[in-house]
Amino acid sequence: MEEQVIEKLIGAFMCLPGVGRKTAQRYAYSILGGDDDSARNLAQCIVVAKEQVKFCKVCGGFATDDLCGICKHRKSPIVCVVKDPKDITNIEKVKNFDCVYHVLHGCISPLENKGPEDIRIKELLERVNAGGISEVVVATNPDVEGEATAMYIARLLKPLGIKVTRLAQGISMGSDLEYADEVTLSRAIEARREL
Amino acid sequence: MEEQVIEKLIGAFMCLPGVGRKTAQRYAYSILGGDDDSARNLAQCIVVAKEQVKFCKVCGGFATDDLCGICKHRKSPIVCVVKDPKDITNIEKVKNFDCVYHVLHGCISPLENKGPEDIRIKELLERVNAGGISEVVVATNPDVEGEATAMYIARLLKPLGIKVTRLAQGISMGSDLEYADEVTLSRAIEARREL
Repeated sequence: MEEQVIEKLIGAFMCLPGVGRKTAQRYAYSILGGDDDSARNLAQCIVVAKEQVKFCKVCGGFATDDLCGICKHRKSPIVCVVKDPKDITNIEKVKNFDCVYHVLHGCISPLENKGPEDIRIKELLERVNAGGISEVVVATNPDVEGEATAMYIARLLKPLGIKVTRLAQGISMGSDLEYADEVTLSRAIEARREL
Repeated sequence: MEEQVIEKLIGAFMCLPGVGRKTAQRYAYSILGGDDDSARNLAQCIVVAKEQVKFCKVCGGFATDDLCGICKHRKSPIVCVVKDPKDITNIEKVKNFDCVYHVLHGCISPLENKGPEDIRIKELLERVNAGGISEVVVATNPDVEGEATAMYIARLLKPLGIKVTRLAQGISMGSDLEYADEVTLSRAIEARREL
């Protein structure tokens, strides 16, 4: 009897990303051996989060109401386009960049059979057509899918007179030139700036 | 508003062993972005496990009733002493070793201020005194605390005419002599067997 309950708990933990059987076992035993409060708190937080957190109707980020906190209170002519809702958290850490967001919920990826109609590009076009936007910063990842998506958005929006920009690529702060790959270095040289 | 809910969920995940902020974030976003069923299932499994799984009154392992499945159905004169309930699962994988268990819930560890009275040694003595036990196999970890606990149990039970044994130490199956440490090798040589 106890085996089934524990086995179910292990299986449930394996739905988390990067969690295999061994890690799930470790989590399950820690829940069983740990105090009641933190286990109940975890279960409750999961239920509450799933019940309350939906996607914002404007930007597609996480929201507890129809609109997320950013869309409710911030007005900006700059829209930052990201792949996933979690990317917003990272960009928000940059203090002096005042923008609103648009979450695509994916990138164009022929390998995964994902075309422009499968991500929230139509909604972006609608927002641009509604007016008030002067610049779209495409902040998708610097990989093949992210680049393709950025190119697609640029070709779509430029004819409408919107400035479309992309996050700069180059060597990152605190890194070592020795370990920088060729593509990154060549982009950093291309985009070199006068001091 | 959504930040607080997400922040709480991240904090709750950080109660799991080895989960720092970054991993907790990853789990939280996967719950928020994933399907409702597996999230609800995880929450429910945690609650059910915490409610139903207690410790067996005889061996101290996990149990949904007063007694665990092993103590209920198995009779054996051999008691295998382990540190944690999860160790039972591992030893149970060994097919042809028929024993009952006794979980200490810890080891003697002067550094953590844990003496013999803080772990379930009294209960082990009671089981031995109740009769029907001929051998106690001490399967605590081969580290300082595990060794000290094994020595303590041996000194306690031997005068009662009980055979006290310890899991053999040596090089493990599939490993390479090149990477075996000195202590392991010296134990393996000491305990060498005639072929």
